[in-house]
Amino acid sequence: MANSTTRRGLLKGGLAVSAGLAGTKAMAAGDPAITEVQDWAQSLGEGVDARPYGSPSGFEAHVKRRNVEWLTADPVSSVNFTPLHELDGIITPNGLCFERHHAGIAEVDPGLHRLMINGLVDTPLVFTMSDLMRFPRENRVYFLECAANTGMEWRGAQLNGCQFTHGMIHNVMYTGVPLRYVLEEAGVKTAGKWILPEGADASAMTRSIPLEKALDDCLLAFKMNGEALRPEQGYPLRLVVPGWEGNMWVKWLRRIEVGDQPWHHREETSKYTDLLADGQARRFTWEMDAKSVITNPSPQAPILHGPGPTVLTGVAWSGRGSIPRVDVTIDGGMNWHQARMSGPSFDKSMHRFYYEFDWDGSPLLLQSRAHDSTGYVQPTKTQLREVRGVNSIYHNNAIQTWAIDEKGRAENVEVS
Amino acid sequence: MANSTTRRGLLKGGLAVSAGLAGTKAMAAGDPAITEVQDWAQSLGEGVDARPYGSPSGFEAHVKRRNVEWLTADPVSSVNFTPLHELDGIITPNGLCFERHHAGIAEVDPGLHRLMINGLVDTPLVFTMSDLMRFPRENRVYFLECAANTGMEWRGAQLNGCQFTHGMIHNVMYTGVPLRYVLEEAGVKTAGKWILPEGADASAMTRSIPLEKALDDCLLAFKMNGEALRPEQGYPLRLVVPGWEGNMWVKWLRRIEVGDQPWHHREETSKYTDLLADGQARRFTWEMDAKSVITNPSPQAPILHGPGPTVLTGVAWSGRGSIPRVDVTIDGGMNWHQARMSGPSFDKSMHRFYYEFDWDGSPLLLQSRAHDSTGYVQPTKTQLREVRGVNSIYHNNAIQTWAIDEKGRAENVEVS
Repeated sequence: MANSTTRRGLLKGGLAVSAGLAGTKAMAAGDPAITEVQDWAQSLGEGVDARPYGSPSGFEAHVKRRNVEWLTADPVSSVNFTPLHELDGIITPNGLCFERHHAGIAEVDPGLHRLMINGLVDTPLVFTMSDLMRFPRENRVYFLECAANTGMEWRGAQLNGCQFTHGMIHNVMYTGVPLRYVLEEAGVKTAGKWILPEGADASAMTRSIPLEKALDDCLLAFKMNGEALRPEQGYPLRLVVPGWEGNMWVKWLRRIEVGDQPWHHREETSKYTDLLADGQARRFTWEMDAKSVITNPSPQAPILHGPGPTVLTGVAWSGRGSIPRVDVTIDGGMNWHQARMSGPSFDKSMHRFYYEFDWDGSPLLLQSRAHDSTGYVQPTKTQLREVRGVNSIYHNNAIQTWAIDEKGRAENVEVS
Repeated sequence: MANSTTRRGLLKGGLAVSAGLAGTKAMAAGDPAITEVQDWAQSLGEGVDARPYGSPSGFEAHVKRRNVEWLTADPVSSVNFTPLHELDGIITPNGLCFERHHAGIAEVDPGLHRLMINGLVDTPLVFTMSDLMRFPRENRVYFLECAANTGMEWRGAQLNGCQFTHGMIHNVMYTGVPLRYVLEEAGVKTAGKWILPEGADASAMTRSIPLEKALDDCLLAFKMNGEALRPEQGYPLRLVVPGWEGNMWVKWLRRIEVGDQPWHHREETSKYTDLLADGQARRFTWEMDAKSVITNPSPQAPILHGPGPTVLTGVAWSGRGSIPRVDVTIDGGMNWHQARMSGPSFDKSMHRFYYEFDWDGSPLLLQSRAHDSTGYVQPTKTQLREVRGVNSIYHNNAIQTWAIDEKGRAENVEVS
């Protein structure tokens, strides 16, 4: 199996394709895709006035967010999942970013939207969207991961597809105003140590966030990937809390209260706490631990081309920094190979890795293991369960295994 | 006017907003947006099953690509323009990337699409899309600019809006296979010095590209911003020619011929050559020179908030490298200020700049001037015309001026 981390390795991979493609070349002579002139080569397509805002090809209609009907009682307080197995690079397109709502998608009129800053501040303030546009802006790429991502896997392999096991994540370039500027504008009183962001939708989502984090890297974001936030992502304004669990990134943000202690609201007590084996619960587990998953091959994306040169790819991220290294195994951990990273590396952003190998057609056990810039290494399921038990829903960042059979089909399996 | 390049400058800008927002705070008591409970705060929105592929808020319907009807005889061989004044950051969302077609949008079936490599190669090859997925991939962010971008401005200020003067550009993260790997697979003969990529649409677009460039940084791209290419951007396969004029980035790429000399086809003789004042034409002017434009304020995005703290922003790029610096003037060049850059800096990618200032309500003349990593500085219109005359359509990278009147309205104007 060719190691993919060197240029020589890449060329070796390329040459290997040559052998595999001998059949393709021979096929060309009788290939109707070559011998026949296709419609699109002999007739005019739509003009530039046809799609003022574009959409994907009809051949990509299968690439979509999906929900799991049995997961929640109702679709307005539910989640859908990013199709990670259909994506590449590190940017999640806006139309495919996973959603989690508590009262459905609020359709907010930006002209009537306000952001209030109140509580322990010198001057309570109310901002229109136009007011916020007068503060300096920053552009940064961050992943947003739901704390419950991979939550179904605590007790064993459950869902057959990385879209469902790991798809409560997206990675986007945000444009926004550092929250610090707005808090400084209001003037936080000495006693102020926490903030409580609140959403404008009917669920009025709230979470307690330490002031230190609020003044560090949080953004009041109004654009994602260059354009306005999407309604399902909090249009016209959402809080960005880099590296921390997605539930804290309050959408349709209408108010930030400054207080002297946390509020212990529903979403940080009965929810978003981690029940351990001894009945105690961890709380305020905000940071997302380093994690990775192989997106291809995977249960929704089997190997269709048969033995020979094969590209394995996946994504990795950490709430504590960047991902300098990902290891990959195709034999269930007997041999590990350092994956090739390609694409930008930012703190608290998704990273893309590849491992090219020559598949001999035998069954495989695929795993990936992320290392983050703090030195932390993604644990096995066994290691994680030893520390946390299996009662929790949240913060499962264990190594994921896909079993590949001799036909290239992939399945979610448990290995020790 | 506050210089924006230091932290102190930012805070100064922030404090300045305070004064400007005193009115906002006072307004809050009687503001119906505060005193009335909005519909979205008291009723459930759509569920997660409503939008398998999302779209922008209805309040953003004005954010769209636009064409200029008089510019071309027909919309199937025409162009539409990216709404730069509505975007921020550096990523252009896929639905808003400008388009240029010569026979309309080809709707290609990826299962029937083939890429042929022929001409001066050891082994002519034909690849399916699935074959190409077996080569190692790279992820890189590049701008694509039409050589005719700003082409209407050679003889004077024409179009009122940066969407129309500068909107034939987009900036996207591509995933693709380095063209080098596929050429190495076929084996380029010693005599091979040029390639001719060819499109599968009815226009069968072709351009001659030196082999040196083909082996350097060109990509066979199949994804943009994480998802499949859009039909109007060449789905399922386009050539990416970093830093070079957009016409060479052949869409719906079906064939690459290797030859020993350029082909001198239509798009590199009667088109995409630069007629000088003496009647001679420059040819093979592939690289896009360093350029910038202020996107806000601009004719389509006037200052609506009146005097006080104001955010000026824009984009800059160079086909030769990165943009370490952009200068901004608000008084027609009497005083220049170094702009604040925010967001990733990649070679041959768009960069975002900002300049925050305290507008006193008097008329302004706004200009930006890009410096690229080779030391090249964006020229004035006068400087450019001295060298190139005014006969050309292509490669106008001159400094753009917007005049702002006392009401905040912006206009495209000529200054010496």
